[in-house]
Amino acid sequence: MTTAKRDTYTPETLLSVAVQVFIERGYDGTSMEHLSKAAGISKSSIYHHVSGKEELLRRAVSRALDELFGILDEEHAREGSAAERLEYVVRRMVEVLMAELPYVTLLLRVRGNTGTERWALERRRAFDHRVAALLKDAAAEGDVRADVEVRLATRLVFGMINSIVEWYRPEGPDGRSGAGGAGEREVVDAVARLVFGGLRKAS
Amino acid sequence: MTTAKRDTYTPETLLSVAVQVFIERGYDGTSMEHLSKAAGISKSSIYHHVSGKEELLRRAVSRALDELFGILDEEHAREGSAAERLEYVVRRMVEVLMAELPYVTLLLRVRGNTGTERWALERRRAFDHRVAALLKDAAAEGDVRADVEVRLATRLVFGMINSIVEWYRPEGPDGRSGAGGAGEREVVDAVARLVFGGLRKAS
Repeated sequence: MTTAKRDTYTPETLLSVAVQVFIERGYDGTSMEHLSKAAGISKSSIYHHVSGKEELLRRAVSRALDELFGILDEEHAREGSAAERLEYVVRRMVEVLMAELPYVTLLLRVRGNTGTERWALERRRAFDHRVAALLKDAAAEGDVRADVEVRLATRLVFGMINSIVEWYRPEGPDGRSGAGGAGEREVVDAVARLVFGGLRKAS
Repeated sequence: MTTAKRDTYTPETLLSVAVQVFIERGYDGTSMEHLSKAAGISKSSIYHHVSGKEELLRRAVSRALDELFGILDEEHAREGSAAERLEYVVRRMVEVLMAELPYVTLLLRVRGNTGTERWALERRRAFDHRVAALLKDAAAEGDVRADVEVRLATRLVFGMINSIVEWYRPEGPDGRSGAGGAGEREVVDAVARLVFGGLRKAS
């Protein structure tokens, strides 16, 4: 069994196992021994792929960050009014969060004790600033309310979006998610409606 | 010094220290030894006050839960339209979260390995259901949008509110908080505006 597993191991599958272990035990609480056991391969096999657990962390959070920053380069994030671009980015953020759930979950849990963690926090902040800038532009263009300070509004909107990692589980084979049946499209629409229109019924 | 400290120790100050340690190390990762060191009193002195760390956890999360459930008994949470009561409850939730920051933070991190943790999760769920019921009533009364499913909307609104523990720090002696100067009143107003009206400018 061990041999069979080793044969089929790729950096991609190792990364996926490592992310699960990091989420369950915390990055600080994870040793190479834990990773070796979870992956079912020897430590030296892991070192064949990566230099250590920090490289695995870096690859994992890079995957989430690349997807998030990638949104900002998409056509609809670059064209149209700031409010339209902002709505597009919010919707895509929710999509990326659900599509890359373990990677984004890990990114959101990073606390900053190692160089890689501090780098990840810095990149997260840079992404937040890009979205905050969009919000500021939308307010300047008169499409977004000006009575909530931009940084505070950004924090609260990110808070709502990021909280999805706490309960969203991908759709099972029966087409229903583990979270009361809310599908991806339903979650994206709900976030967009609440972030832009709020709970109050449009009169 | 140790004697002086012991003399001034009360169950209240011990609880406050324990909550900080639980938040920093995680409840599972905290031993009586850690609590003893952080409090600067012997383990036997701690056992003089409480039966162990689980009792400290129970007292800490009870404090947060009592404050939260207390909101629902307040006059404005019981009178008026469901939408008015809901807005009152949302504002008060944010106030309680900021006033009882460490206790609510701990409550939100509880994961459910011990009996006390499972009890706390159950109580949190019961509180969520009370708020979801208010939202449902407000939708039935026609004051809240019906195009976002109640449970999903409740999750997202709680997500926004609960995320405040990640960045809000109480006001310092200079009257500015550690989080870019957003004061309590500003945060409460921002949440109420975004939850009910969203980002879009009222036309």
